Amino acid sequence: MADASPQVFLVGAGPGHPGLLTLRAVECLAQADLILYDQLVPRQLLEHAPAHAERVCVGDLPGCHPERWPQVHAAMIAAARQGKRVVRLKGGDPFIFGRGGEEAEALRQAGIAYEIVPGVTAALGAAACAGIPLTHRLHASAVAFLTGHEQPAKPGSHLDWDALARFPGTLVVYMGMARLPQVVQALIEHGKDPATPAAAIRQATTA
Amino acid sequence: MADASPQVFLVGAGPGHPGLLTLRAVECLAQADLILYDQLVPRQLLEHAPAHAERVCVGDLPGCHPERWPQVHAAMIAAARQGKRVVRLKGGDPFIFGRGGEEAEALRQAGIAYEIVPGVTAALGAAACAGIPLTHRLHASAVAFLTGHEQPAKPGSHLDWDALARFPGTLVVYMGMARLPQVVQALIEHGKDPATPAAAIRQATTA
Repeated sequence: MADASPQVFLVGAGPGHPGLLTLRAVECLAQADLILYDQLVPRQLLEHAPAHAERVCVGDLPGCHPERWPQVHAAMIAAARQGKRVVRLKGGDPFIFGRGGEEAEALRQAGIAYEIVPGVTAALGAAACAGIPLTHRLHASAVAFLTGHEQPAKPGSHLDWDALARFPGTLVVYMGMARLPQVVQALIEHGKDPATPAAAIRQATTA
Repeated sequence: MADASPQVFLVGAGPGHPGLLTLRAVECLAQADLILYDQLVPRQLLEHAPAHAERVCVGDLPGCHPERWPQVHAAMIAAARQGKRVVRLKGGDPFIFGRGGEEAEALRQAGIAYEIVPGVTAALGAAACAGIPLTHRLHASAVAFLTGHEQPAKPGSHLDWDALARFPGTLVVYMGMARLPQVVQALIEHGKDPATPAAAIRQATTA
C-alpha cells in the first residue's frame, strides 16, 4: 500500500457516511498539513485533521471542470515539494471513477512518493443501505460498475452496450441519474430484459 | 444503513490490512457480545471487541464447506434471540462474494433486525497496493468483479464468458488462483486479446 515515505496520500473517503471512513484514512488526515478534498466529501471528515491543516475544496464533482484538474495536480506537487504532508481526499475509492489513476501518474512523473488508501466505493455503500447484495451464489456470479457519464449513443464510446446488456451479473451505473433514461434505453435496445429488477439510489449512506 | 435496533451486524472487515477497517465496523465490534468471524479475517481486528465478547471462527473460507452455512445462520439467530449483539465479521465487503445476501435473508426470515456495514472489497485493496487503477478516464469506463470459483467449462455456468471477454473495462477475478489457467483460457477462447495486460495478486494489503 505504501511507497517509501509517502508525501501525498490519495485517500478514499467512502460513500458519505462519516463512519465509513477507514482507520488508515483517519491516520492520514490526523497527520495532514494540507487537505485537498472533493466537493462531495462530507465536511465532518475534516474534523480528523489537526487545527493547523489547511483545508481546500477542489470542487472536483465527478466528470465536471476538467480544466481544474491540472491545477489540483500542481497544488499537490507544489505542497509536497515544500515538505508538506498532503491528503487528497476523494469520494468513495480513489481507483473507482475517482481519477486516482491520473493523479497517481502526475505524482509519479513529478517524482513524489505517494500512498493510495482504498475506500468503500459508492456501490458498496448503496447496496448495504438498500439491502441489495451485489453478488449472490444463486443469482449473480459477477458485478460490474460502469459510468453513466458516457453518452450511450456516442460514436467511439468506450462502452460496448451489447456486452454490457449481456453482462452475466449485477450492473451498477455510477453517476447515472443525469442520463438514466438513455442508459436504460441502451441496455434494453441491446437485449436486456425490460423486466430486470432495478433500483435507483441517490446519496446513499448520507443523512 | 440500519434497520430499527439491529441485533446482528453483517460487517465487512476489509481486504486484510487492519487499517482498512471502517470506523463503523470498529463501533460494532466494540459493542459485540459474540463475533462470528471468517477464517481469512485478521485476528488483530478482534482486539476492537470487549474482553467479554465470545469469538468464534466459523471457518468460512470462500466457497468451502457449504454444509456449515446453516449452522452459522442458526448460531447468529440463536444468539440474537438470547439478546446478544452479534457481529458477523466477513472478509472484504459482505455483499461482494461474501454470502451476505444469504445471511441477511436468513435473518429476515427469522425476524431478526440487522445492519449491513460495507467494507473495502479485496479488488480495491489489491488495486491500491499494486497501483493499478480499476477505472481510468482514458482506458477503462467500467470494471467487473467475477468469481473464479465457477468452472468456466461448466454447462449451465452463470457466467457468459463471451460477454465477459468483450466486457468494456477492467476484469477482476476473485478467488481466481485455483482456476487461473482455465479462466485465462476461457477469456482468450472467447476473443479476449492474449496481449491484454494482467496482474495476479494474492493476499493484497496483508503483511
